[in-house]
Amino acid sequence: MNASFASRMNGLQASAIREILKFTADPEVISFAAGNPAPEAFPVDAVSELTAKILKDQPITALQYGVTEGYAPLRELLKSDLKTRHGLGESFDDLIITSGAQQAIELSCKVFCNPGDTLLCENPSFIGSLNSFRSYEVNLCGVPVESDGINIDALEEAMRQNPNAKLLYVIPNFQNPSGVTMSLEKRKAVYALCVKYGVMILEDNPYGELRFAGEEVPSIKSLDTEGIVLYVGSFSKVLSPGLRVGYLLAPSEVIQKVVVCKQGSDVHSAMLSQMICHSFMNDTDFIGHLASLRAIYRHKSSLMIDGLRQYLNPAITFDEPEGGLFLWCKLPDGVDMSAFCLNAVKNKVAVVPGSAFMPRDTDKTQCFRLNYSTPTDEQLKKGVKILGELSHSLL
Amino acid sequence: MNASFASRMNGLQASAIREILKFTADPEVISFAAGNPAPEAFPVDAVSELTAKILKDQPITALQYGVTEGYAPLRELLKSDLKTRHGLGESFDDLIITSGAQQAIELSCKVFCNPGDTLLCENPSFIGSLNSFRSYEVNLCGVPVESDGINIDALEEAMRQNPNAKLLYVIPNFQNPSGVTMSLEKRKAVYALCVKYGVMILEDNPYGELRFAGEEVPSIKSLDTEGIVLYVGSFSKVLSPGLRVGYLLAPSEVIQKVVVCKQGSDVHSAMLSQMICHSFMNDTDFIGHLASLRAIYRHKSSLMIDGLRQYLNPAITFDEPEGGLFLWCKLPDGVDMSAFCLNAVKNKVAVVPGSAFMPRDTDKTQCFRLNYSTPTDEQLKKGVKILGELSHSLL
Repeated sequence: MNASFASRMNGLQASAIREILKFTADPEVISFAAGNPAPEAFPVDAVSELTAKILKDQPITALQYGVTEGYAPLRELLKSDLKTRHGLGESFDDLIITSGAQQAIELSCKVFCNPGDTLLCENPSFIGSLNSFRSYEVNLCGVPVESDGINIDALEEAMRQNPNAKLLYVIPNFQNPSGVTMSLEKRKAVYALCVKYGVMILEDNPYGELRFAGEEVPSIKSLDTEGIVLYVGSFSKVLSPGLRVGYLLAPSEVIQKVVVCKQGSDVHSAMLSQMICHSFMNDTDFIGHLASLRAIYRHKSSLMIDGLRQYLNPAITFDEPEGGLFLWCKLPDGVDMSAFCLNAVKNKVAVVPGSAFMPRDTDKTQCFRLNYSTPTDEQLKKGVKILGELSHSLL
Repeated sequence: MNASFASRMNGLQASAIREILKFTADPEVISFAAGNPAPEAFPVDAVSELTAKILKDQPITALQYGVTEGYAPLRELLKSDLKTRHGLGESFDDLIITSGAQQAIELSCKVFCNPGDTLLCENPSFIGSLNSFRSYEVNLCGVPVESDGINIDALEEAMRQNPNAKLLYVIPNFQNPSGVTMSLEKRKAVYALCVKYGVMILEDNPYGELRFAGEEVPSIKSLDTEGIVLYVGSFSKVLSPGLRVGYLLAPSEVIQKVVVCKQGSDVHSAMLSQMICHSFMNDTDFIGHLASLRAIYRHKSSLMIDGLRQYLNPAITFDEPEGGLFLWCKLPDGVDMSAFCLNAVKNKVAVVPGSAFMPRDTDKTQCFRLNYSTPTDEQLKKGVKILGELSHSLL
């Protein structure tokens, strides 16, 4: 092969999490490294039944080409549900169905960011989004996350220093990886700053329906009178990630650009997947299903948190999340975080080193991420004990 | 909204075909403008049965996250089928499942082309691919297509004049839109030129299994001893486009880069779609199904061609395709092609103006594209008569 790859490929690597997940092919390894929904969270019987009905009643719609914007009944249902249950969507907004939230995030970056433009994000942030942004050669600039969300002073300072900032990427609910929820006060401050500095907000809310404690906080999009918020949702955590169905609610002029890009990316998202999501929301007890998911994750998070409180060296600290799938643990200064994670996997417990979630190579962290949604109850109990023993022997 | 879009958006427009398809919302309009498989080509009963079995036997695999490379049994089956039936795939090659051929095409461009790099293609070429390439701000350079494929002298001249040419995009079988099949001699010449000038070949073969006349011609990938050919296939025309399943067979080092980009694009393709494709190839009479598709398109193409021979002003010329979905008609010089197409749709027959398939705005054409796969037999007969009357009144 004589040809060379495009320069955008230089900064890209396969996700560090994928490398760690290779260890988890060993069936003896307990994985706290994934971000998968609990297997028991899938409504298998309902999906089987409604899929059979779709293929009986509307087989050609399911198998033929669809429009890029998405399956019209699903778009309408989502618009109405977002408005009714969450107060989202103004007259200037429109909605497109995407191939998972990941595609909504990628295309938002593609339509707004030139190479070299600054993209502001939380530090730490979701590795999948960060890699997607990197593929557009943006200047990633992370702003520290505190227990109640992004540091507002640091955010304004970053905006001052980066007049070419185009987008701010945030996960306000049960952030991945920190588990932190941004306070309403901070959401308002973030919105005001973005209006002031002319920065669009990319609000990613994959876990919002998985709140198992505390009170719901209005999304930033619900404050959006100016049309500067791009709101990303997903069926991955509330129904199935394998179907690859997400969506983007944003000003129509943004959606039009995203449609043009999506045409060139995958034409449209899988029709059968979209129709399954529509039927599941429309024809089953979707709200009841969400309640059952919250119960599953409330239980699993408690198992992990109670175990950590009992066994973990208290020098390792963490915030208790109010929802979502993750716990973010901080090692004391001076402890070698990478070595701790490597020791954990050698002891048959896989965790993700926090470095995977750093916007820049030069950003440092003492943290690692734990997931409680994927392991079984037995694995949760056993894995936490192992981590606890390790924490006492290594610290 | 204060923020401006990225400069890559400047050259992008929604597909011209989509604009024409809006006319076809009028139920009285006969559409020869689409590129959809015939509705009767979908094996609805088989898909219903095997989908039920997948959701009964492997529901969690279908609903949970999968790996970016694709559903392993489908990857293995495709590799083996491509080798056995078509002689494709060397030890240096690997295969990734993509969200339709469109994604394989986009990601191939993304991993190889910097803005300003030249991407060589046939003139005319498939609008969906051209728009995807445009989104990476490449210098699109079209090389004329003749009755036996791309003009070799013009291709070499283009390579001489564009030392920054990275990729050559070709559809050797029943090209979209021209319907032309590239001869074996030209395939060999194209391959030799690309070796000589260090250009990678992106070989798109969505219609290869839909040959209804003549003899199969070996693909360019089957000649690939040097590892310079990226071969794109799809289930869209042989099973269902709504499932959005395609694939890329290419040197492993290319596949590795595509995997990294796909992670950031949509994580992986829909699992249920992939499993349906696998089961359909593995558990049903796939070869028999392909034969039935060829019979459908042989019949439909004959209906259109016979009608055109009977009714069309012979000043309008076309080559008879040996497969695929399209006919490419050429108006005599001096006739206003756009006006002809507009008149057609006013007379309730939609065709696609050839300008939609030009690599550059400055490229001119006297041609328009007809599709015979989507209309019914009745629509084919009636629409061709209308076009015929129009051709006599306007020319």
